[in-house]
Formats: sequence, structure tokens, C-alpha cells
Amino acid sequence: MPSPYDTLAKVREKKPLVHHITNWVTIYDCANVVRAFGALPVMAHAKEEAAEMAGISSALVLNIGTLTSEIIESMLLAGKKANSNGIPIVLDAVGAGATKFRSDEVKLLLEKLEINVLKGNAGEMASIAGIKAEVRGVESISAGAKPEEICTQVAKEFDCTAVITGKTDVVASEKGVYLIGNGHPMMGTVVGTGCMATSVIGAFCAVENDYAMASAHALSCYGIAGELAASKSNGPGSFKANFYDEIYALDKGKIEKMAKVRFESK
Amino acid sequence: MPSPYDTLAKVREKKPLVHHITNWVTIYDCANVVRAFGALPVMAHAKEEAAEMAGISSALVLNIGTLTSEIIESMLLAGKKANSNGIPIVLDAVGAGATKFRSDEVKLLLEKLEINVLKGNAGEMASIAGIKAEVRGVESISAGAKPEEICTQVAKEFDCTAVITGKTDVVASEKGVYLIGNGHPMMGTVVGTGCMATSVIGAFCAVENDYAMASAHALSCYGIAGELAASKSNGPGSFKANFYDEIYALDKGKIEKMAKVRFESK
Amino acid sequence: MPSPYDTLAKVREKKPLVHHITNWVTIYDCANVVRAFGALPVMAHAKEEAAEMAGISSALVLNIGTLTSEIIESMLLAGKKANSNGIPIVLDAVGAGATKFRSDEVKLLLEKLEINVLKGNAGEMASIAGIKAEVRGVESISAGAKPEEICTQVAKEFDCTAVITGKTDVVASEKGVYLIGNGHPMMGTVVGTGCMATSVIGAFCAVENDYAMASAHALSCYGIAGELAASKSNGPGSFKANFYDEIYALDKGKIEKMAKVRFESK
Repeated sequence: MPSPYDTLAKVREKKPLVHHITNWVTIYDCANVVRAFGALPVMAHAKEEAAEMAGISSALVLNIGTLTSEIIESMLLAGKKANSNGIPIVLDAVGAGATKFRSDEVKLLLEKLEINVLKGNAGEMASIAGIKAEVRGVESISAGAKPEEICTQVAKEFDCTAVITGKTDVVASEKGVYLIGNGHPMMGTVVGTGCMATSVIGAFCAVENDYAMASAHALSCYGIAGELAASKSNGPGSFKANFYDEIYALDKGKIEKMAKVRFESK
Repeated sequence: MPSPYDTLAKVREKKPLVHHITNWVTIYDCANVVRAFGALPVMAHAKEEAAEMAGISSALVLNIGTLTSEIIESMLLAGKKANSNGIPIVLDAVGAGATKFRSDEVKLLLEKLEINVLKGNAGEMASIAGIKAEVRGVESISAGAKPEEICTQVAKEFDCTAVITGKTDVVASEKGVYLIGNGHPMMGTVVGTGCMATSVIGAFCAVENDYAMASAHALSCYGIAGELAASKSNGPGSFKANFYDEIYALDKGKIEKMAKVRFESK
Repeated sequence: MPSPYDTLAKVREKKPLVHHITNWVTIYDCANVVRAFGALPVMAHAKEEAAEMAGISSALVLNIGTLTSEIIESMLLAGKKANSNGIPIVLDAVGAGATKFRSDEVKLLLEKLEINVLKGNAGEMASIAGIKAEVRGVESISAGAKPEEICTQVAKEFDCTAVITGKTDVVASEKGVYLIGNGHPMMGTVVGTGCMATSVIGAFCAVENDYAMASAHALSCYGIAGELAASKSNGPGSFKANFYDEIYALDKGKIEKMAKVRFESK
């Protein structure tokens, strides 16, 4: 079985184009983290070109952080092209459960498109699964079940890879569950680390057809860089600069020494 | 009377949700600074959810930096909900006076909504007050009166707390005027420090009903972090990273030692 | 003939207002780099104010990175005002050739407006010149001719200053070709350095009527700061912070020692 480093090495070698239709808050960092991992980001949301850009890309990342009706239209156009081309779609359900609009639009995207990887925090994913949860803005306050259970239920219901990020990241698919123990609390002090993780998953899924494994590897590499950066930072400002440096400097030795990925097959 | 630190401690304890409808230039930093201060930012501008998001928030920050007609519509929807729920609205009148569109829309927001805190630089606020001023783009070139006078006039005319940022920040309300001597010229070398200050005021007003005092405390804490960051920075790049670190590391000792807040009652 | 430092000194002295209608990915960095160079950025894309804002500015920067039809409309309004006022328009043709929409809209802007400086990477500019090229997303994969040739052809065909950034930057006009040897590969590891270069060119053209020379000087100063920053950075995160510091700290000594600008007249 390939290691997280092996999948990273494929990203760096193939430099896949990762198309994003995303939010205006973290759009820069989503692009920049994809570049730091060695892939090529492109952001294009006009309905006139969304499908064409998806058509030349190796993965499509959708993020509903600052969703509008017009953006949904472009997501559907790009998503249909992605599905027909067989490239993975990764959807970050930012704030699902916080407003009716977000919940409805996530439902619409899940109905109209084949979403390959669906990601959120525990509250968002519980809300999508119909489990009682509290989502305040874009924060998960409480979810009515354990992350593994929510994640497995979402993966089954929507026939996809489901990802819940948190203290331990969980990746569930029909084959089983990955638990990823990498990461650092400092990552939660900076806005955008959730969205960026989704973009990194997009880059890894662009080069590895086993999307559950690709997602687990992406989160492990990302979390390792977070740990390394936190160890030399004084706060969120220095952390963020160090985080990009550490992502860029990830190598086989660091990843094989630090990776905490456990797979529990069904 | 509570100190600036006391209000900061309430922000960190209550972690209020601060809803923003803001501009596309500094949207990330507005969110990130709210997070660094210990509160929860959320950015949502779709007219389908603007009111609902305001309805679960503890403060609403409006910023017209890259205003469009559609955004104004969402601001009105969110603002009406904020008013009916009794949560504070903080409006940053970026570029008021620079174009007719901005001046007209600020006037519209002030007519249709109860704005609790209205903030700008000297030129923008003079323009709102009908005092001759020069605003070039989003910069105040000259204002036809002293900041305290402009600020007091705006507070009276629009029955709100008025804030003018500058070398000395001024916060005026019907009770009197706060003068805040914290801050550093280095803050002016980085784009977004004005918008970020507004977001911090939003977070402080979310936990303290005396909005003038909350605004003064927000600006004092923010300015102290700026002073601490400037003392260890080589330019705008290192300053910005250090600024976030210092905001995150603010504590009682630093604030009580460095705060420069003077109140002149009427 | 003035040196790159002389033109920088004029930017710092005159602090020109540089109006942008640009993309949502790098909009912050475009503003921030203009500020770090000592000029005043303003971003305003609403059709209600685009022309008025251009009317009080000293240069207009157009960037199609996340183009929509509505933005094109505002670009035309602002551009017509810029042309009638005689201020320079700098257009960054991000992703031209990658989708039909981008290629068509660049063509439209070139037809309807007098574009003074047209900039892109080799693939984008080759595509505009009708030379066979491969543009993947916003990356130049291959161009069917040498950058100098493409650049000279574009300058001639569209009667403008043409700029191609790359290992050696090329600036072509009817008078000849500038080759600028400054810059560092680290600049390519960070998203936005291309867009930022365009904004810097806008600031320099705002104070110097010889747009080809202004563009060459802008790229030289920008590249020198990149070299200085790279020499003290560990990766893209620390590089970006250092880059702003070095831009801010550029002085006559550094620039005269390090500038690599060669002019080949026709």
C-alpha cells in the first residue's frame, strides 16, 4: 500500500490542475496551499467558463463558504463536466446546517452531481446526515453522535468518501475508516485551515483514484506540516508563514517518521 | 468601570459570532483578526441567507469597501434582522465621499437601519457630516475640521457611536468622547488595518452594551498589539505576522501597562 | 535616462492612486504591494462607480483572473474614462488561451479600449498573438516562439507596450525591447506574484509617461526585492513576509547595485 509520502510525490510529479469554485474569504489560501504542495490551482467561477475550465482540470473543488445562487449555477455546470470526464469532485459543506439556504444547496449539489468526497466538521456533517447538531456560523458547536459514526453514515447515504476534520480526522468509505492523528490545535487559530485541507484533498485525489486513501494521505501530510510549523511559532501569524514553509519542505523522512494514519476495514 | 482587558476577556469567554458583509479585498483579514481575538467570524452575503445568519449572530459588521447594489440589498436584509434582534451594527464607511455611489449608499444605510457604530477616517466622516473634505480613493487627504469635532457632530446627527481612526483614535457618543492613544504608524503600511479595526469593534460590541466604551477598548487592545508588533518588525510583511501573534498573546499585564484611553464626558 | 530607482522615487513622492478591477484571489496582495511601493491602491468594481473612481485615479489596472460578464462591463466603463482622461491602462491577461471566454473577453477589451500595457506569461501572450501555445489554467506550459518574438509581435499588433514575465522579463514597444534579469524562482512558489507585478507596473506607469521604461523599472525593482527576500527565506511562507519587507526597504544603493535592465533599441 502506498504511504502518504508516495501520494505527495505523485502530486509533485504530475502537478495536476485543480479547479476551484470556492468562497471569497479563503480563496487565496486555497490556491496558495495547492501551489505549495506542488500542484497547479485555478479559480474560475463565471458560468461562461466553469465547465470548460473543469474540462481541462484533474480535480474540481467546490466550497460553499460564501455561496450565492449564481455560484451554485456555475458549480453545477463545472460539476457535470467533471462527472462526465471522470475527474473527482470534492465538496466542502462549509456552514451546512447554519442556514436553510446552505443546507438546501448542499442537498441540491448532492442530488444533481456525483460528489466523490464530501467534507465538513462534525456539526456540518451531522446536519447533512439528518443527525441533530448545532452549527453556529461556520463552527461546529456540537454533533449528536461520534465523528466515526456520522462519517460512516454520510459515506453510506451519499455513496461517497466522507471526511470529518477535527482533533482526529476521519475518512470513511464503503471499505472502512481511516483515522488520522496528525495536526495541531494551532491550526484552529487561523481562519481557512479547513478550506485549505479540502483543496489539498482535491490535489491528492487528482493523482490517486482511491479517494479515501488519497484524502487520508492529504490530511496526514497537511497535519504533519501543521505540527512542524506549530513547534516553531509564537502565534497565528508566525504559524501561518511557517506552515507554508513546512508544506513546501515536506520530505520522505519527515512524513514516514510522523505519519499517524490508521485504517479499520469493514 | 471595566478596563480594555475586561472587555477583551469577555470576548474570549463568550466567543460571540460576528457576522460580516464586507469587501473582497480584506475579507480574509477581517475574519482572521476576529478569530485571533477569540471570537467567531462568519461571512455570508447571499440575500437568501443574510438575515438568517444575522439572526444567529451577536453583532453585524457592514463594510462598503467593494460595494455593489446587490450587496447593499443583503446589508439591508441582515441589518433589519440585527435591529429587530437588538444586536449591534457596526458600519465602516470605506471611501464615503470618494464617489457619489458610496456617499449615496452610506446615506441609504443610515436612513433604513439603526447603525450603532459608524466608523471612518477623518475625510470619510467629514464627508458624511457634510463638512468639506478630500477623500482620494479610500484615503483621507484632508478634512475640514478636527477629528473630535467631526466625530461629535456625526454621533449627534446620526444618534450613534462615531469612530474616527487616525494618529489618535476618537470615539464619540452622546455621553462624551474617548481618545485612544494606542497604535503605531507601521499599521498604516499594511492594507486592511482599518477594516480589521472595524471587525474588532464588532467583536467587542457583541459582548458589551456600552458601544462607545466597547469601541474604545477594542481600539486600545488593537493598537497595543500594533505597538508590540512594530517593535519587533522590519517592514509590513513581518509586521503583519507579528501583529497576529501579538493580538493572540495580549494579556492583562500588557494591556493595563500600555493602554492609553482617555474619556472626556460632556 | 532615469534609473529604476528614479522611477520608484517618483512613485513614493507622488503616491498615485491606482484603481484596480481585478480578481478575487489576489486582490488583497495587489492592493498591499501597491501600498508597500508607496502608492495608494483602490479597488472598486461596481458599475455605478467604476468610471468615477477611474476618473480620480492616475492609473487603471485590469486583471481578468476571475472574470465575469458583469466585471467586463465595469472594466469597459472604467477603461473608457481612463482613456478619455489620458491615464494608463495596464491589462493582465490571466489565463488567456485557457478558455474561450477569457480569450474572447481579452479580445473585446483590446478592441474597445486603448490598452497601454498588456501583460501575460509566454503562453497567454502567444495565444493573444495567435501563435500556437499551451495554457493550462493560468499556467504557461509552452509557447510556440521565443518570448522576445511574441512580445514584439503583440506590441506591434496592438500598438501597446507588451510585457512577458518569466525567467527573464521582456518589455517590448515600438522603440525596442527591455530585458530584465531580476527576480528569483522562489517568486513562482507563491500565488499572486504575477498579478502583483502588474499592479506595480500600474503604479510606475502612473508617474512615468514612457510606459515601456516604467514597466521595465517596475519589474526590476520588484525582482530585486524578490532576490533579497529569497536570500533570507526558508520557503514560500517566510518568503512572502520578507518580500513585503524588502519592497518597503528598497533604496538607491540596493537598486543601483542589483538592477539588471538591458535595452535593445530597434
